[in-house]
Order: sequence, then C-alpha cells, then structure tokens
Amino acid sequence: MYRSHTCGELRLHHDGTQVTLAGWVQTVRKFGAITFVDLRDRYGITQLLFAEELNPELDQSPLGREFVLQATGVVRERTSKNGNIPTGDIEILVQSFKVLNKSAVPPFTIQDDTDGGDDLRMKYRYLDLRRNAVKRNLELRYAVNRATRNYLHEQGFMDIETPFLIKSTPEGARDFVVPSRMNPGEFYALPQSPQTFKQLLMVSGYDRYYQIVKCFRDEDLRADRQPEFTQIDCEMAFVEQEDILNMFEGLVKHVFKTVKNIDYTEKVERTTWEEAMWTYGNDKPDIRFGMKLANLKVPGHVFMEKQASLQASPLAGGPSGFVVFDNAETVIAIAVPGAAEYTRKQIDELTDWVKRPQIGMQGLVNIKYNSDGSLKSSVDKFFNEEQLRAIATYTNAQPGDLILVLAGAEERTRKATSELRLEMGKRLGLRKPDEFKLLWVLDFPLFEYDEEGNRWVARHHPFTSPKPTQIETMIGNDPKIHDAARYLEHPYANIKANAYDMVLNGNEIGGGSIRIFQRELQEKMFAALGMSKEEAMHKFGFLLGAFEYGAPPHGGIAFGFDRLCSILGGSESIRDFIAFPKNNSGRDVMLDAPASIDDKQFDELQIKLDLK
Amino acid sequence: MYRSHTCGELRLHHDGTQVTLAGWVQTVRKFGAITFVDLRDRYGITQLLFAEELNPELDQSPLGREFVLQATGVVRERTSKNGNIPTGDIEILVQSFKVLNKSAVPPFTIQDDTDGGDDLRMKYRYLDLRRNAVKRNLELRYAVNRATRNYLHEQGFMDIETPFLIKSTPEGARDFVVPSRMNPGEFYALPQSPQTFKQLLMVSGYDRYYQIVKCFRDEDLRADRQPEFTQIDCEMAFVEQEDILNMFEGLVKHVFKTVKNIDYTEKVERTTWEEAMWTYGNDKPDIRFGMKLANLKVPGHVFMEKQASLQASPLAGGPSGFVVFDNAETVIAIAVPGAAEYTRKQIDELTDWVKRPQIGMQGLVNIKYNSDGSLKSSVDKFFNEEQLRAIATYTNAQPGDLILVLAGAEERTRKATSELRLEMGKRLGLRKPDEFKLLWVLDFPLFEYDEEGNRWVARHHPFTSPKPTQIETMIGNDPKIHDAARYLEHPYANIKANAYDMVLNGNEIGGGSIRIFQRELQEKMFAALGMSKEEAMHKFGFLLGAFEYGAPPHGGIAFGFDRLCSILGGSESIRDFIAFPKNNSGRDVMLDAPASIDDKQFDELQIKLDLK
Repeated sequence: MYRSHTCGELRLHHDGTQVTLAGWVQTVRKFGAITFVDLRDRYGITQLLFAEELNPELDQSPLGREFVLQATGVVRERTSKNGNIPTGDIEILVQSFKVLNKSAVPPFTIQDDTDGGDDLRMKYRYLDLRRNAVKRNLELRYAVNRATRNYLHEQGFMDIETPFLIKSTPEGARDFVVPSRMNPGEFYALPQSPQTFKQLLMVSGYDRYYQIVKCFRDEDLRADRQPEFTQIDCEMAFVEQEDILNMFEGLVKHVFKTVKNIDYTEKVERTTWEEAMWTYGNDKPDIRFGMKLANLKVPGHVFMEKQASLQASPLAGGPSGFVVFDNAETVIAIAVPGAAEYTRKQIDELTDWVKRPQIGMQGLVNIKYNSDGSLKSSVDKFFNEEQLRAIATYTNAQPGDLILVLAGAEERTRKATSELRLEMGKRLGLRKPDEFKLLWVLDFPLFEYDEEGNRWVARHHPFTSPKPTQIETMIGNDPKIHDAARYLEHPYANIKANAYDMVLNGNEIGGGSIRIFQRELQEKMFAALGMSKEEAMHKFGFLLGAFEYGAPPHGGIAFGFDRLCSILGGSESIRDFIAFPKNNSGRDVMLDAPASIDDKQFDELQIKLDLK
Repeated sequence: MYRSHTCGELRLHHDGTQVTLAGWVQTVRKFGAITFVDLRDRYGITQLLFAEELNPELDQSPLGREFVLQATGVVRERTSKNGNIPTGDIEILVQSFKVLNKSAVPPFTIQDDTDGGDDLRMKYRYLDLRRNAVKRNLELRYAVNRATRNYLHEQGFMDIETPFLIKSTPEGARDFVVPSRMNPGEFYALPQSPQTFKQLLMVSGYDRYYQIVKCFRDEDLRADRQPEFTQIDCEMAFVEQEDILNMFEGLVKHVFKTVKNIDYTEKVERTTWEEAMWTYGNDKPDIRFGMKLANLKVPGHVFMEKQASLQASPLAGGPSGFVVFDNAETVIAIAVPGAAEYTRKQIDELTDWVKRPQIGMQGLVNIKYNSDGSLKSSVDKFFNEEQLRAIATYTNAQPGDLILVLAGAEERTRKATSELRLEMGKRLGLRKPDEFKLLWVLDFPLFEYDEEGNRWVARHHPFTSPKPTQIETMIGNDPKIHDAARYLEHPYANIKANAYDMVLNGNEIGGGSIRIFQRELQEKMFAALGMSKEEAMHKFGFLLGAFEYGAPPHGGIAFGFDRLCSILGGSESIRDFIAFPKNNSGRDVMLDAPASIDDKQFDELQIKLDLK
C-alpha cells in the first residue's frame, strides 16, 4: 500500500500519528523556508507542511500542480485552522516524500469553477473527472444505482442480463448494427431496450426482473441526447397497472430518501394524459407550481378547477370584437403570480420571447390584475372591466397577478402557452432544483397518427396493451385511414393504453405499460401498425411463439437513468453525469472515435464503404 | 394483484386461509370426481384440488400443461403429504379459477430431466428457462452478482459505467465494429474490456473502480465461448500486487460464503507461473489433488518436493538403454494414487487415450508400485527393480500407486502429462464439483513469442508492467529477434510481469496485473510489440496523453463472470448460466440473429456487402 490513510480522514485525534498519504498536488505555497502543499485524493484534501531543513531536496525538484506525491510525516494540529474542509484542523509535518509521477501543466484548472471550455474538457475528460463537481455527480450516480438495486432486491427482483448482440427490428428509432464475420452478409443489432427479452423472461416465469443496462439508439442527436444511454429496466408478471405504480413509486421514494435524504411521504399525484394536456399543455408537466392553462374559448372543462369549470369560458359566448381572439382556433391564458407590476419593457421582452421561431406566436396579450383589484389590459379597447374580470376569475388570477394570453392554432398555442408557463416558472424561481415533485401521467393514447405514412404508429411501443374496455374497438375496426384530414375521427384515435409515465419536475423519468400477452391481440397490433404477417413473423416470431406457451399477464417500466441522476443532481445536462460522454455528433473526442478501420477488418467482415 | 401468495410460501399454519395463486400448470391428475393440479411459479409448486361439484366448468375446458391459471381457494392439510417440497403439507381446495392464458403442448417437458435436445431448447429458450435446473443457475448468477457488489461496495469501490461505442484498436482479439451513420466511413468498436477506461479512471483519481460489464470478442468460437461475455472488472490506484491479491482473495471468499455457505478461511495458495508449469504442466492447475509431474531427465528442480529435489532425477545420469526414453527430449511421470491394481485392459485403454490426436503421444509406460512394495513395469526389460524404485521414490509414489510415464518433445509431453493428470483426477473422483480450491499463479512472462510475425506479443496485454527489477532489461535491449530459432535466448524471453491469475479448480477465473503508469515505459512497451510511434499515438494517444498529467501507480483484475458462476454451480458449461446464450456459430437461434438488414439501413450507413 502506498498510503496509510486517505486525504480525507485525518482529524485532531490523529495528532502525533505517523501517516503516509498519496495523492495529487492541488496547490503549492512557499513562505520562505516553509512550503505548504494541499494534497488531494478522492476522499478530500490534506495540508502538507514541508520544512526546508527536513526536506532539502524540495528545492532541487519543485512540486507542480497535479504531481502525484507520496508523503510520510506526523499529524499535528494546525496553527490557523481551515473550517471549510473536514481535515482543516490538522496538517502533516512531512518527514520524507516521493514524487510518484510528474505532471505537465494541465490545460485547465482542476477546480469547481474551471477555466476550461466544453471542448477542452471533453478532450481531457480524465482531467475533468478530477474536478470535485464532476466527481460528486458520479458519486451521486453510483448512489442512485446502489439504492435502486437494494430496493429492487428487497422486493424480490432478479437482475438478469439480456444480450447486446440481437436482431435488427427497426420500428421507431434506428438500430445500430454490427456486421457478423462468422455469418457474412448478416448483422446483429444493438438493443434499443431489452423490451422483448424482459417479456420473454415473464413468459419464462421470472416474474420480477430488473437490469441497469446500456441501450442504443442511432438517432440524430439533439442537445443532451446520447447514442448510448442507461436504463433501469423492470418487468413484473401477474400484476395490474396499480401494482406497478405502487412498486415504482416506492422505488423513487427510496432513492430520494437514500440519496437525497428526502422524505417523500405523500402519495404521488396522478393525472391522465388528457388532463395533463389540457391543464399544462404537455404530457410531462412540472407541478412544482400552478399557473394552469385556462382555455378561454372552450366551455368549462371537467379538468378545470371546480370553481372555474362551473362557469362558461369567457369567450365561449361568441365574437368579442377583438379579431385576434375571434379568428383564433384557441385562446389560452395563464395567471402569473405577483407579476402585475411588470414594466412595459418587461412585457415587450416577453412578447419578443413568444415571437421567437421556437415558440412561433404572433403576439402576447396581457391583463394586469393589480393589487388594488383594478384591471388593466393591452386589449382595453375590446374588453370592458367586467369582461376582463371574468377572464381573471376564469384563470384563477389573484390581485397582483399578470394574466398572459396567447391565441392561435390549437396545437401550437397550447405548446406555446406550456413553454411560456415553464419560462415564467423559471423566471419567478418556482422551479427550484432542490424541490422534487413526482407525477404519474396515465392513460396515454395507444396510437399516434403518422402523417408521412398516413398510418398509425404505437405511441409507446407495439407491445403496449389497450385499455381492456377498448380491446373490442381495436379488434373490431379496420386500421385503415381513409381520409387523412379526418384521422381524429377514426376509432383508433380515441383508444387509450394501459401506459404510464413518471414525471419529475417536468421531465419524463420513466415510462411503461401493461403489455399484450395474447398472441391474437399482438398480431392485431402488428397489423394495425401496418406490418404484414410475414414481416411480423420475421421480426417478432419468437415473441408470438412464446405467447403460444402460457404467457402470463405482465407489465413493466423503464427509467432513464442518466436523466434521473441529472435531475437529482440539480443539473439540466445528462452529460455531466456520464463518465465518458459523446458530443452532439456522437463522437468521443477523447478517443477520437468513431474512426476508420483497416482493410483487413473490411475484408474479414465482407463489407465495403459506399460513400455518397 | 393476481395473487395473494406465491406457489412456494404456503405452510400448515395457513390452514383455513383463503388464498389466490397464479402460475403454470405443471401436472394434471384426475381421479374420478377429483382433479389434482400442481401449480408452479418461480417460488415453488402448490397442489390444487378441484372437486367436480365445486368446479363443474373444468370438464368443459380441461387444463393442459403450461396453462396459466389463477385459482382462489382455501388452504387445508393434505391427507397424504409430500416431503419432497416445502409446500407438501398443504393443498388448496379450489373455489374458483380462471385460465389466464392457454398453452400449446410444449416441444419438450419442463422438468429437470427434460427430453429436449440442445437445439430445441435453444430455440425455445423461454421454455427452457422455466426448468428448475436453469432457474437455479440464473438465481446463483444473481446471487454472485449481488455478493460481488456488496463486497466491493463495502471496500469503497464505485461502479462507474464505461462506454460501449469506442474505438477499434485490434491488438490480440478481433473487435466487433459498428458503422456510424452520423460519421460516414467511420466505425465504433465494441469493447473487448474496459481496460483503458478503468486506467483513465485511476488517472482521474477514482482509486477503486468496478463494473459488472458486457465485453465483446469476435473470435472463432470454441465450445463454450461466447461472442459477448460478462466481466467483473476492477481497478485500484496506489496499490502494489500484494494489495490486489488480498483484496480479491477476499472477494472470492465472500462470494463462497454468501452464495455457497463455504468458509474458505485458509490463505489462498500461491505459485509462480514457472512452478505451475513445472509441477502441473500448465498455468491453471487444479490443486484439489496432487499427482505432481516428476521430470525424470532434468536434475532435481527447486520446485520439486524437498525430498525429491535433493535426489538426482533418475534418468539424469545418462542413457538407460530404453531408446524411447533415451531419445526423448523430456520424460515425465505421475504417480496415480491407488491405481496399481489397474488391469491390462484398463491400461490399454489409457494408452489409447494418450495416443488420441488431441493428446498426440506415441505410447504410455506404466510402473505398478504394488501394495506389497514390489514393482512391475511395462519396461522391465530395460530397468531393474532398483531403477524402478528410484523412479517411484522420485515421483513420490506410495505402495498401491500406478506410475504413468510419458516421453517425447518437451512442450507436447508436458501438456500431455498435464492432460493425463487431469483425466486420472477425474476418473478417480478427485475433482469434486463441490470442493473449491483457489490458487494464485504469479509472475507470468511479460512477452510471448509470436512465431508467425517473428515478434513479441504481450502475454496479458500491452498495459502490464514488467517486474521493477527487469524494467532495465526491457528498456536496455532491442526487441528485435535476429534468430527465430533462438528466441528463447533473447533477454525479453525471461522478463516476468507483475501479472497474476486466480485459478479455481483448474480454471482461470480471473487475471490482472499492475499496470505501466509512466509514459516512457508505455511507449517502450508499444515499440517492443512492433507498434510504430504513429500507430501507438493513433490507437492509444489518449492514454499516453493521460500519463503526462499525473498518473498514479495502479493495477487491477478482471474475473470471467460467466465462468465463475458455472464453476460455483458445478457445471462445465457457461451457456447454462447465461439467460440468452448464442450457439457455436455466434447465432441466437431463438431470435434467428444475426440476420440481413434492409436496403434503407445500408443506404443510411453508406456501406454495402462485399461477399467473397
């Protein structure tokens, strides 16, 4: 052993002990005949004191930043203590030392606030990983990993490894493929998820399976998406949706408690997909704050607050005379708490914000519900006070609130208002990174309409079961869409699935479903998605076969492990929580991968390039 | 929930309780108006009793094997108990039931002794996984997984995930490669091990890393090798070899205790590679039994038992007159305990055994050291009793033993005697699957001679450090081999590495080394392996770069997880311990993978086939 103790463990009660430490030189400070060195390892920092008379060789070979040092000496109480670090009461009077390895000057400082840019830190990731901020992220990741495993073990789940070299069944996202040398002309695929394998394990009777497992999707990378990512993948047999919700609500609460010491004792709130879309404008609402959407044109909806739902929507009666509202498909308002005092300049800036191409609205109407109860709006020409008050009441505004109203096409307006709500939540500090609010979103649509192909695609995946009451609707109707413009009138558009998402602070952290477990229904599903019988057999024959031999009812869920960790760590970037992430072009800039391969490899694999 | 209890948990004290079970129909036995069904799930088997008057519908839709059944009824004491199963004291008087899913007749019986052949069971792996024997294997695997994680966690190791899409650096085994759509013409490789990443993590200061991780090697598959396999991958910084041996000896003992309830309290034996080769003829000896190799021609070797080593080798003096021995490069004997009574027929059969092409010897000499102390051999013509007695003494034979002697070329004879020793150990029942004996094999050669390329290759891998005392030998000598026939005289042939294997019952279960951590030495190593500077920088520039910035001394080990599990499970086949294994052609016969991919995929990846 190169050390007797770590750099994080010595305290005052070690006074007088001879110790050996090993670590990295964080700082060197020389005061005449005395040199102080902060020595760093994974566990902390300890101050070393080199006295010239004890360590004359220090002058010949001075220590630099990030040198690897082994030092032996005696623990003693410091004269000036450092309350900021746990070892701040002591220092080591060095008797002898050895430079185990030198270091060139690092390209950026190894500190919480580094001077290194993103690219530089990615290239020298092994140095970036030394920074305390990054280390804390990986420690948190490991803690979440461990807490997850412990909880699932206690609940009787078994970790069972599923294969990585599988069969390409592109359906939705693109597969990464792997040419097979032993089977020339054929390819493996890397799994997008172990979905079918975990279902087979249920057929095999393993009834509680989990895995923390790498998955792969060859998709164009948006910011903060990685071609390889990690899932907490789970499946249970002989369960209904309610069992799964309870089990995994328990998992996340256990992680909260273990990793963050948060007692999340309340029942996790639940909403349906329809209600979420109506109330928040999206299916992964951040419910740490209110500011719910009020649709001013559609008559009071069952999902609205009770008080409001009893009233007619303020604009439901007929034309208001304000052409922007009158011509709009949808008019949606939110009441921003305490923002009635916003200046003209602030409101202009917000107007610019909603006009940005990403949001794409034409303008922004505001109604100030002043603290004194008076109302003042940007559309005073068209609405009298009574009308404005009706809108204020309908949006649940309180005196002091600023009501913001967007108008336009249904989908865009809903989305824009949702974005505006989140933006206002952020600006008002309502989205606190250390506050955690879970939500189950239930009853997702089973199908989505694919405009390009004029066909139905599975919203979750083709193994998700419809609500039992709607199985007949699915089986009894031809999936064909005769009139693309009226696809919403097709019976399939209203079929809901036994599918659920877990949402944390506005992020989908997990999603799953109760699966189809009958061969006929699964075949019908493949047919509904436009798959021929041959294609279905070619791709999923093994699963259809398995359903012949006693498949039990089952369902499961998968959590995005990278995302879960980043939210628990209070960060927006999953990359900060991955030891060796790739950049937005899917490159590992440290390794310089992907890269060319040599002729022998092409030759053995019997493939060649076909560059366009 | 579909059940109130599992099929494994009901006991006599549940008598009178109403319960609901769900599971698979194992057997159906009808006796007049009464039908007994054994219902099976992951946890056990419970007997259900259907009385015709309570369950008249059973007649209309009889239950078949592997039907999925949910049954509600009352627990009651059995009249004839079954002592073979934990639930054998009770049965369920069924009040109502529901067939959750039917099953076709399975293609083989779901029993410990199944009638299904290998191919059939691979195709219907989801049914094979239902068999108790396979389930026990996967349960054992999970138990080893869990025990490993718990031990390493207690020891301060962190599970850190390393990437799967990396860079191809073929060196030794072939890489699987993955074409990159986003970077046309370039490829990722799947990792053969996370070797360089774990070393980078040491450079980053994470000082105790582990992972249970999939690795990939595109090698021709020998029996019981898989293209994807699992490793327990570990690395530590600031350690010497001794620290690693102690740490991982502790790991395996912990696994023994937790999984098999074996107290392996003795210190794990250690041997050097040289001694192992001398004493057992191979570098992964099974030390559950003796029968050590005695070299009759080479003077008493330091590694021999003390008594023998003091004596001259019996044949060291000069020609014996027996031309087979006299002309042979090597003559090696083993004393097979208690086998002096072997018949002529048995000995003939053994002679045939060593003449098989896999062993490749010309013949087998035997000397019977009879219980009465007399000696009788197949070479009595050439050796008098005194000479035979000298051989018997030298091989440590006891009265009653059968001495077997092989003669021929050095390497082949050593290997053949090693095989014969293992075979005799097996025949004599000395290789008990429930006895576990660990061994550390130390001081492996750093290099191996590659005849084809007339060059040195790394025996372990290029990151393994030479013994500190031999660094000078490595740096100071040109790696070039001028005379291929005399490569053994090259100074590199004698350089030993800080490398170690852990051997369990004659199988290498783990191997590792203390790594090079200085850039200059690593560069020298790459050069010794025939890599140009450019090639070294292209392949491993990131590692050489990392060594510039304060790399600590470090080392590690990796265990073959599949193999470890199979040995603990008393099986020779790793396939039995993998949920979804591939066959000897690398095919998943259940999925029918690998498979062709479609034109769109070729097009997007910008590659095409180039079949020979």
